[in-house]
Amino acid sequence: MSNSTAKPTIAIIGGTGLLGSGLARRLAGAGYPVVLGSRSADKAKEAARLLAVPAGSAAPRGATNAEAAGIGEIVIVTVPWQTQGAILEEIASRVAGKLVVDTTVPLVPPKVARVQLPPETSAALAAQKRLGSGVRVVAAFHNVAAHKLQKDAPVDCDVLVFGDEPRDREAVIALADAVGLRGVHAGPLANSVAAEALTSVLIGINRAYKADGAGIRITGIAGS
Amino acid sequence: MSNSTAKPTIAIIGGTGLLGSGLARRLAGAGYPVVLGSRSADKAKEAARLLAVPAGSAAPRGATNAEAAGIGEIVIVTVPWQTQGAILEEIASRVAGKLVVDTTVPLVPPKVARVQLPPETSAALAAQKRLGSGVRVVAAFHNVAAHKLQKDAPVDCDVLVFGDEPRDREAVIALADAVGLRGVHAGPLANSVAAEALTSVLIGINRAYKADGAGIRITGIAGS
Repeated sequence: MSNSTAKPTIAIIGGTGLLGSGLARRLAGAGYPVVLGSRSADKAKEAARLLAVPAGSAAPRGATNAEAAGIGEIVIVTVPWQTQGAILEEIASRVAGKLVVDTTVPLVPPKVARVQLPPETSAALAAQKRLGSGVRVVAAFHNVAAHKLQKDAPVDCDVLVFGDEPRDREAVIALADAVGLRGVHAGPLANSVAAEALTSVLIGINRAYKADGAGIRITGIAGS
Repeated sequence: MSNSTAKPTIAIIGGTGLLGSGLARRLAGAGYPVVLGSRSADKAKEAARLLAVPAGSAAPRGATNAEAAGIGEIVIVTVPWQTQGAILEEIASRVAGKLVVDTTVPLVPPKVARVQLPPETSAALAAQKRLGSGVRVVAAFHNVAAHKLQKDAPVDCDVLVFGDEPRDREAVIALADAVGLRGVHAGPLANSVAAEALTSVLIGINRAYKADGAGIRITGIAGS
């Protein structure tokens, strides 16, 4: 360990997807111990093996989602909206007392560029409801074009971070910064609808402007 | 008229407020005929007189909200959420067939930094419901710090423009550009919840970062 403060182990549930694997390789590159979760441990191990992490970084491990959730100190959930509920049920018993970062955007195909809110208003509030008050849910990473995390180039996008506890938001802002994005305090979990809805807007903007991955920046604050 | 194409007359309902008067002076400065509306015609006339429009620009007029709505070819509604319904009732008969630009953010004091969605999901959808299908509602100007429009300095903020008809969005993007902002096609009116919710997020960001008026930029599209 070259760092004086040990970095928390990060579990990435749904870690074989574009967002999960992109976060995994950048977090591993920043010195975080990473364990990729997938439905199949073999798939997760294969995905972990294929991650091009920088020389000198610890290679991510692969495991089932439930195993990964049990190992992780911070658990990042990167799964499609359609499977969010079932996968949260799978990991619920392993995340008690932990910080769970929900990245889910409630897209409803085929009209993914149209905002269609879930009954709970946001996917993150749905996650909090399902996991219960013993789990600290923070929502983040909704607006970054996932494929850009697969490369090393800087990504011109801020990460709005929602959570009811400022300290938990701080922890996720640190992860955003570690992967080369800027994390921004965006208020309570109830505000997560803003970033989730914005993802549908950005999908539409990509189509309308033939863009490769539009993002957002908050202007008028330090560093912007 | 120095322009070869006549600019449409813009009515600004609630034109004595910070956003309304800011848009008024910048639109007048860009050569648009402007009529300010207020509950009291006298108040509107006084506010119009006090607008520091650039030399050579036609001075905005003042009128009651209903009169202004009748005169305007495009009608911009800049009123608080708490009065939106009553004021739309006042102007409904004057805006048939017109383009109405709703700027309302459904803030619920005292927790204005917390997203609290209306039953219709967004204030713009509530406006469309109230005005009926004979009126083309477009939603815009939610995220700009209104006080910044009162000055001549450039404002570092994009305007997400929501509407079901691309041509109507285009018309409002032209207005955003005229006041020195960049308008962006943001999809159907149903997407307006994204920008409305984002305003509560920005209010919280202003507090958390001691900012004078945070805004947003869309990255990754031409001109950004």
